[in-house]
Amino acid sequence: MTGSTHDGQAGQFAIGVDYGTLSGRAVVVRVSDGAELGSAVSAYRHAVMDRTLAATGAQLPPDWALQVPSDYVDVLRDAVPRALAAAGVDPHDVIAIGTDFTACTVLPVLRDGTPLCELPELSDRPHAYVKLWRHHAAQPHADRINALALERGETWLPRYGGKLSCEWELAKGLQLLEEDPEVYDRTAHFVEAADWIVWQLCGTYVRNACTAGYKGVLQDGEYPSAQFLAALNPDFAGFVDDLVRQPIGALGDRAGGLTAQAAAWTGLPEGIAVCVGNVDAHVTAPAAQAVEPGQLVAIMGTSTCHVMSSDTLGEVPGMCGVVDGGIVAGLWGYEAGQSGVGDIFGWFVESSVPASYAQAAAAEGVGLHEHLTALAARQQVGEHGLVALDWHSGNRSVLVDHELSGVVVGLTLQTRPEDVYRALIEATAYGTRTIVEAFESSGVPVTEFIVAGGLLRNRFLMQVYADVLRRPISALRSEQGPALGSAIHAAVAAGAYPDVHAGAAAMGRLERAVFVPDESRADAYDELFAEYTLLHDHFGRGGNEVMHRLRALRRRAGATTASPVPAPLETAAAAAGGGG
Amino acid sequence: MTGSTHDGQAGQFAIGVDYGTLSGRAVVVRVSDGAELGSAVSAYRHAVMDRTLAATGAQLPPDWALQVPSDYVDVLRDAVPRALAAAGVDPHDVIAIGTDFTACTVLPVLRDGTPLCELPELSDRPHAYVKLWRHHAAQPHADRINALALERGETWLPRYGGKLSCEWELAKGLQLLEEDPEVYDRTAHFVEAADWIVWQLCGTYVRNACTAGYKGVLQDGEYPSAQFLAALNPDFAGFVDDLVRQPIGALGDRAGGLTAQAAAWTGLPEGIAVCVGNVDAHVTAPAAQAVEPGQLVAIMGTSTCHVMSSDTLGEVPGMCGVVDGGIVAGLWGYEAGQSGVGDIFGWFVESSVPASYAQAAAAEGVGLHEHLTALAARQQVGEHGLVALDWHSGNRSVLVDHELSGVVVGLTLQTRPEDVYRALIEATAYGTRTIVEAFESSGVPVTEFIVAGGLLRNRFLMQVYADVLRRPISALRSEQGPALGSAIHAAVAAGAYPDVHAGAAAMGRLERAVFVPDESRADAYDELFAEYTLLHDHFGRGGNEVMHRLRALRRRAGATTASPVPAPLETAAAAAGGGG
Repeated sequence: MTGSTHDGQAGQFAIGVDYGTLSGRAVVVRVSDGAELGSAVSAYRHAVMDRTLAATGAQLPPDWALQVPSDYVDVLRDAVPRALAAAGVDPHDVIAIGTDFTACTVLPVLRDGTPLCELPELSDRPHAYVKLWRHHAAQPHADRINALALERGETWLPRYGGKLSCEWELAKGLQLLEEDPEVYDRTAHFVEAADWIVWQLCGTYVRNACTAGYKGVLQDGEYPSAQFLAALNPDFAGFVDDLVRQPIGALGDRAGGLTAQAAAWTGLPEGIAVCVGNVDAHVTAPAAQAVEPGQLVAIMGTSTCHVMSSDTLGEVPGMCGVVDGGIVAGLWGYEAGQSGVGDIFGWFVESSVPASYAQAAAAEGVGLHEHLTALAARQQVGEHGLVALDWHSGNRSVLVDHELSGVVVGLTLQTRPEDVYRALIEATAYGTRTIVEAFESSGVPVTEFIVAGGLLRNRFLMQVYADVLRRPISALRSEQGPALGSAIHAAVAAGAYPDVHAGAAAMGRLERAVFVPDESRADAYDELFAEYTLLHDHFGRGGNEVMHRLRALRRRAGATTASPVPAPLETAAAAAGGGG
Repeated sequence: MTGSTHDGQAGQFAIGVDYGTLSGRAVVVRVSDGAELGSAVSAYRHAVMDRTLAATGAQLPPDWALQVPSDYVDVLRDAVPRALAAAGVDPHDVIAIGTDFTACTVLPVLRDGTPLCELPELSDRPHAYVKLWRHHAAQPHADRINALALERGETWLPRYGGKLSCEWELAKGLQLLEEDPEVYDRTAHFVEAADWIVWQLCGTYVRNACTAGYKGVLQDGEYPSAQFLAALNPDFAGFVDDLVRQPIGALGDRAGGLTAQAAAWTGLPEGIAVCVGNVDAHVTAPAAQAVEPGQLVAIMGTSTCHVMSSDTLGEVPGMCGVVDGGIVAGLWGYEAGQSGVGDIFGWFVESSVPASYAQAAAAEGVGLHEHLTALAARQQVGEHGLVALDWHSGNRSVLVDHELSGVVVGLTLQTRPEDVYRALIEATAYGTRTIVEAFESSGVPVTEFIVAGGLLRNRFLMQVYADVLRRPISALRSEQGPALGSAIHAAVAAGAYPDVHAGAAAMGRLERAVFVPDESRADAYDELFAEYTLLHDHFGRGGNEVMHRLRALRRRAGATTASPVPAPLETAAAAAGGGG
């Protein structure tokens, strides 16, 4: 069916732009076969603001994470032309552009799409900025939303594993209202960055079906009711009708044509198809040809998203959500996730590895990740004597609780950095197994485990996952899965393929069983997974609420930072250690 | 009574030699007033062997910690003459030498005192070396000793808080017998290093009352019976009679006169008084003038020992031991301890602080401990959101379980090295409070908290302790407390004072209430101490035996180290991390 179009497509290209946590990546893809001909990455100038607001230097409270929207436009100006140049492709042969974004990453804008943080009078207001997906300061608001939804028996609640995340639109919107009502009042739209960037490209604000369903709680055509919203806070009653509701575009639909301004930014022809927005995880499934029921795709980078289509509607505890056609049309799309994975390894390498290791890595001409991985790979399972909980960025999977935090048990004076590094890798693998088991025990079978994303490059880590999961691991054979997925959707939006299934078949690629489990290691990991589960349930299900109390104490301590610390403490620097 | 001797003492000096974990320190002290006139430190050439045996490079199993006895003699040759030179004291004015040692630090020797590790045919045998106090590989043996003692209702058991430590003579001796019977059979004496060094000085093997009571389980004149030992292992029946029993010397007694050989090593006059051995912690109490009931002295260095005399005999859960006259004559001497304190901070700084911090510290011209302390001191109580368990070297206080291990709860992607450093400092303070509360709730009052040792120099740490304990902290005003204490005992052995009370009154020094608690910080710490206690009891009292299972798994994994690691893991070094 699509074969007939191949000849014409050989000279046609689609651009996929993947907006990640720290950078945006543009890839030029051939429409006929998905060949990736050139790419370019553009780091966000302001990265993630999680300690101070760049505009003022003011300190941000704990758990905040903001971004600057103009950084996203800079990716269009910078990475797209460079990707075209790298590909050696004539821009006139590009027929479409598609984008994907982290989510729920959301910003308040004026009627015309101008971000409020770009108004001079609001540039010093943290709430005027983009709240990045991993802004976790709205947990108290999410707690109220969940308690009320449970009390009222809201029918949408089970579709989200019984809990909405503090990362999503409702919690972030409620925090905005209650902490900075003036900014809330100035907000015309509270818009997903996934849709805002499409708006910048084609001049039209279309809400994509994926974030509307997963992050905006649109189920069976309805958002949470005004009554529900008013019960949270009377001033919140109009949140959906005034700030959120907007025409919905299906994944792979054309949102509009490229504007003259966006054509000037990118060097692409005015008027070409701009695809409806999408989420970095979900857009990856077709890139991995994972469009059949039970094919779970884990997109492993700073965090891990799990997306899977199924013909079964199940209520999976702690899943992020199930949305009809949320990944591909005609199937239930499931999303689950681990809020910290590569982020945790990155934090560890940045904050917890001594100079001697940095020197050794430099002497070998490798990075610290490679150095630690090589050291960790020499160990037997269990040799380090550690077990960790991978909650450094909270838990958005089975427990859906962003006030949880990381734990390491088993530290001794012999514990070395590679030991903790390996324990953290293993902890994320246990977290993944917890999610897979939650699906299966809820009657939603997982038939294949496919990995995409940057962590696929770490073969040791992948082998740990295969051993812990006791499953073969298939691999998306592209280092730019989301961008490839965006390009596939763009090609569909331009009419090059009749639907995403056809586009995935022609342009996606998957290699099966690249890593297979080892029985003896898997047996040892069964024991360690049992320890993980004990700690998981103890700290995560009410056995000891210490993590919540520590958060509360931290917030209180943060609130009193202004009070003077006694002078003797300020001048107290003296040697610790010593004989004995 | 002692005043009459002062004139004659003005020109008299005593040498105190303090044998610590990593080095020995000699101090020249004026007998009349305790003035410290000169000192010198000599690091042990082999330090602590806890990964490999220096003689062969062979790997040691987990939890081992060995030393080389000739390193102790080198301290006599090196540090004593240098201390004399530094003091500008004529060696002929020195009337006595006293020593103190870590304990239970123990070695197998021939009849003449020759360490078995110095026999060429045994130099490759780990069991022929000194087992340092923090050798923790005899925990399984200690477990059997404790279970059997409980079962048989041994009357000495309550004198040790209900549990003997795996650090002590019985457990280490049983491990020696069962793991290397050939070395055991060659052993004529299993001797405390505290007594072995005195033997090297005066040619006479006298067992000091302190280690005999606290580490050798000598109570009311009796060791554990041959029947008890035989029930552990028939070949162990003669352990006490053949390898341990020896005449006992009281603290402050003269063991003998300095031999010609030792005079040659040290440059001191042959024949001067050599004092009976003592333990670094216990010997410090008189240096701090802590000879009255209820004055608890915490000697804080790599580990912390708590020693206190009392007129009350109580059974304190988990105390290390109570010995009649174990610290000063006429009172019950209590010992308690924390097996890792400065060690933990040292391990953290060595293994977990990134290059950027090392550079910042270097730029300020301070060490990493000072740098981290200064950063940590700026925080409010609870601001880091962490609570830790200080069991990196096991727990030898209330729980007496060296298979326990360290924990950090509350880690996030925002957690910085100074946060964990502060949490570890606080954890050791909570550990101290747990001990003080155990004494008081057992009817043994603590009237004053006195600190000695290297950590006293860290004023921030001391303030944390005052806040956590809600008590003023007094300080021993000597940086060389154990060596000063040894010199006091040496002066008594030489007859310069009639007893240790009199020597302490003349030569010791104490400053009261140097640090006082702050009410508001103490209130916040009460909350965190409650969290510590919850975790303490959960992981330490059977709520979750994960730490024991992790140790077992680690031992099993260590035992299979020889089995080949699959090739794909060896070549698996590839980048972790990557975009999201």
